Amino acid sequence: MSKERKITLEESEIPTHWYNIVADMANKPLPPLHPGTQQPIGPEALAPLFPMELIKQEVTTEKWVEIPDEVRNLYSIWRPTPMYRAYGLEKALGTKSKIYYKYEGGSPAGSHKPNTAIPQAYYNSKEGVKKIATETGAGQWGSALSFACQLFGIECEVFMVKVSYEGKPYRKIMMNTWGATVHASPSNLTNAGKSILAADPNSPGSLGIAISEAVEVAATNDDTKYALGSVLNHVLMHQTIIGLEALKQMEKAGDYPDIVVAPFGGGSNFAGIAFPFLQNKLTGGKNVRAIAVEPTSCPKLTRGVFRYDFGDTVGMTPLIPMYTLGHNFIPSPIHAGGLRYHGAGAIVSQLLKDGIIEANAINQIECFEAGILFSRTEAIIPAPEATHAIAEVIRQAKQADAEGVSKTILFNLCGHGHFDLGSYEQFLSGKLVDFEVSQEEIDQSLAQLTTPTI
Amino acid sequence: MSKERKITLEESEIPTHWYNIVADMANKPLPPLHPGTQQPIGPEALAPLFPMELIKQEVTTEKWVEIPDEVRNLYSIWRPTPMYRAYGLEKALGTKSKIYYKYEGGSPAGSHKPNTAIPQAYYNSKEGVKKIATETGAGQWGSALSFACQLFGIECEVFMVKVSYEGKPYRKIMMNTWGATVHASPSNLTNAGKSILAADPNSPGSLGIAISEAVEVAATNDDTKYALGSVLNHVLMHQTIIGLEALKQMEKAGDYPDIVVAPFGGGSNFAGIAFPFLQNKLTGGKNVRAIAVEPTSCPKLTRGVFRYDFGDTVGMTPLIPMYTLGHNFIPSPIHAGGLRYHGAGAIVSQLLKDGIIEANAINQIECFEAGILFSRTEAIIPAPEATHAIAEVIRQAKQADAEGVSKTILFNLCGHGHFDLGSYEQFLSGKLVDFEVSQEEIDQSLAQLTTPTI
Repeated sequence: MSKERKITLEESEIPTHWYNIVADMANKPLPPLHPGTQQPIGPEALAPLFPMELIKQEVTTEKWVEIPDEVRNLYSIWRPTPMYRAYGLEKALGTKSKIYYKYEGGSPAGSHKPNTAIPQAYYNSKEGVKKIATETGAGQWGSALSFACQLFGIECEVFMVKVSYEGKPYRKIMMNTWGATVHASPSNLTNAGKSILAADPNSPGSLGIAISEAVEVAATNDDTKYALGSVLNHVLMHQTIIGLEALKQMEKAGDYPDIVVAPFGGGSNFAGIAFPFLQNKLTGGKNVRAIAVEPTSCPKLTRGVFRYDFGDTVGMTPLIPMYTLGHNFIPSPIHAGGLRYHGAGAIVSQLLKDGIIEANAINQIECFEAGILFSRTEAIIPAPEATHAIAEVIRQAKQADAEGVSKTILFNLCGHGHFDLGSYEQFLSGKLVDFEVSQEEIDQSLAQLTTPTI
Repeated sequence: MSKERKITLEESEIPTHWYNIVADMANKPLPPLHPGTQQPIGPEALAPLFPMELIKQEVTTEKWVEIPDEVRNLYSIWRPTPMYRAYGLEKALGTKSKIYYKYEGGSPAGSHKPNTAIPQAYYNSKEGVKKIATETGAGQWGSALSFACQLFGIECEVFMVKVSYEGKPYRKIMMNTWGATVHASPSNLTNAGKSILAADPNSPGSLGIAISEAVEVAATNDDTKYALGSVLNHVLMHQTIIGLEALKQMEKAGDYPDIVVAPFGGGSNFAGIAFPFLQNKLTGGKNVRAIAVEPTSCPKLTRGVFRYDFGDTVGMTPLIPMYTLGHNFIPSPIHAGGLRYHGAGAIVSQLLKDGIIEANAINQIECFEAGILFSRTEAIIPAPEATHAIAEVIRQAKQADAEGVSKTILFNLCGHGHFDLGSYEQFLSGKLVDFEVSQEEIDQSLAQLTTPTI
């Protein structure tokens, strides 16, 4: 056998604890505020939406949180995930840099989302919750939660953005196959949905609207809780399982990344791979550049402002300190549905403000070019979200070559593109377009905000 | 961690040799015959279609054939594949039996097909072949070969059964993403296709027609060879990598199967998991029941005859000694496209004739019921082909319970159902139907055969 391309771990090497980066941050994230009073809220305010154990995880400053045995056992369905050395891509680029990727697409739902869906379903189950309501855009999160709820015998109700519900029927059927109920959002099942439909009966929906509907269902039903697939602290923490495994795998490979790259929607993908490496950086250990990659059409990290904003469109969620384009910002219809969100989680926003992490924005045509090159050299067809990381990795490798240096680059290949081949077809037939966001558009969206500045 | 659900192997444990069951068979498979003269053919007759190294493998009686380092290295993209103990399914069935499955859906193409696509592309590449033509039904084989050809810089031309080409656009785009050219078959590009279209301009195509087209392209172009995804001896041998890994994993689990089960189309899926266990049985070692599961709508093993027949519809291929329904038999449009083939490979047919293996036929509704139960207890959504094995496993477990015994059952979960969710939707909405094949239909198809009996 020539040089190994795959670095694997044993089932027994699945980490025993999640990493909570808040413990190592000099500037802690600011507290969430009550949407009405705009005063800091305590854990009890979240009780209608989440089980107590997850609320504790949301606010804890402990550095390590133990992963329950039952969750580790279910993780083992697809974890530990493999880490690959991208020899094929390196050769195609002719780069002197070393490229590694952690592949999360081997989970039953096809992405990293089950890493948090499983523990969220577990803690809800432990507290006797009968039903969980959630939203989903392209369907990655909804299918992951459907799968997790099925394993724990919890009913799952998913509000799926209508344009995706109609355009991505396979993701919907996947959720049905795992026993979930799926509604096109906006729906007539909630006041939030009804009010949107009253204003525009043909509303295509948005992630913000779907969140409003799911939160309303949870807030108004005693036996129902809500679950979110990104943004929140406990969600990001669950995803650190990715980077904790990658740390061990890097050690096995006898290497350490100079640069860690991940796509950025709400932050869980990026946090998952990057935080365990940032731990060293924050505690005086090895340095690392951590780069979050967003689409140019939804540029909250690179062109948004840092202030309090709602997580949803209607304004039902607590106010979160975030880089945001404004909760009324409607991103252009790019294919990376998981990155079409107006804001960023509190922890990641604070890290960006403090200069600990970096962000770049890339257009989708460049991303699909990178995705095709990757498919043809590394075999795996990446999800459109994941192509954002690949495009940035290619930029970094080329820049290193231009500077005559070799970098070690690690990125998160967060999911496969089996449900996104329609977008590849568009690209291959030359029909894919890029979307520019004008400064006026951003300014107008931000001007509508009446939430507290920071 | 509680009881381990996943039994894994290290990359270094990827087998170094394929297993050739012919070496251990008391009755060797009968030789193929020339389609014109009906006389046994030698290796040279296959030279227009295949590279010499694959022809050698097709006729060899050596027991072990070394896997080239370059092939093993590419196998490592997704191999070794995991073997699972199906605790969730066992619990749902309340069975005393132990159920294991080998999961092949983690390959980039989503099935076991790359196990032979990679070595076939490799040997073609070594002999300077510039282009490979092939057929595909539902698209599993075509996408596997597209992926393999891309890795070796070989052009790939796929004739895809028209009804699948139109109904399964994602599989086609997957092939395009990996750089292949895909034609709807019957096409106007070949004499075979033209003759079919002249008789019926609206022909939906069939696997047999698509094989005729691909064989014609290879036979009439010097730099082009042909590749088949099942049936042939060398294809079955490449797939034994599955069972050879499973042998090691069973040893790790401290267990050995009483029963091995796999879906049956042309034989490669079944051979892959079963032959390495049959090796022990054939050489006086541990016994095992090996059960091939076919759809009731295409029952060549359970209701066909054992005689010489063509591999394709037009009659261009050598005559193969096979259990067959006749090469003009048109299977009903069940969703398991990979199982809609009129015949069985020569080796498997001989083993069935000699009573060394068993066969059962199951209707697709029972298979989808099994697939849904599996999805909800084991998380992975199986391809329709794979649900045939699951349904049989459930039957076997129930029968063992009825007899008051515990069996150890292993099956091949050959692929995921990400491209088959339309069929799950049909099942979930109650629209799925079963197809019966009348004895008259089989008799009429067989009565058309003028090929030699055995």
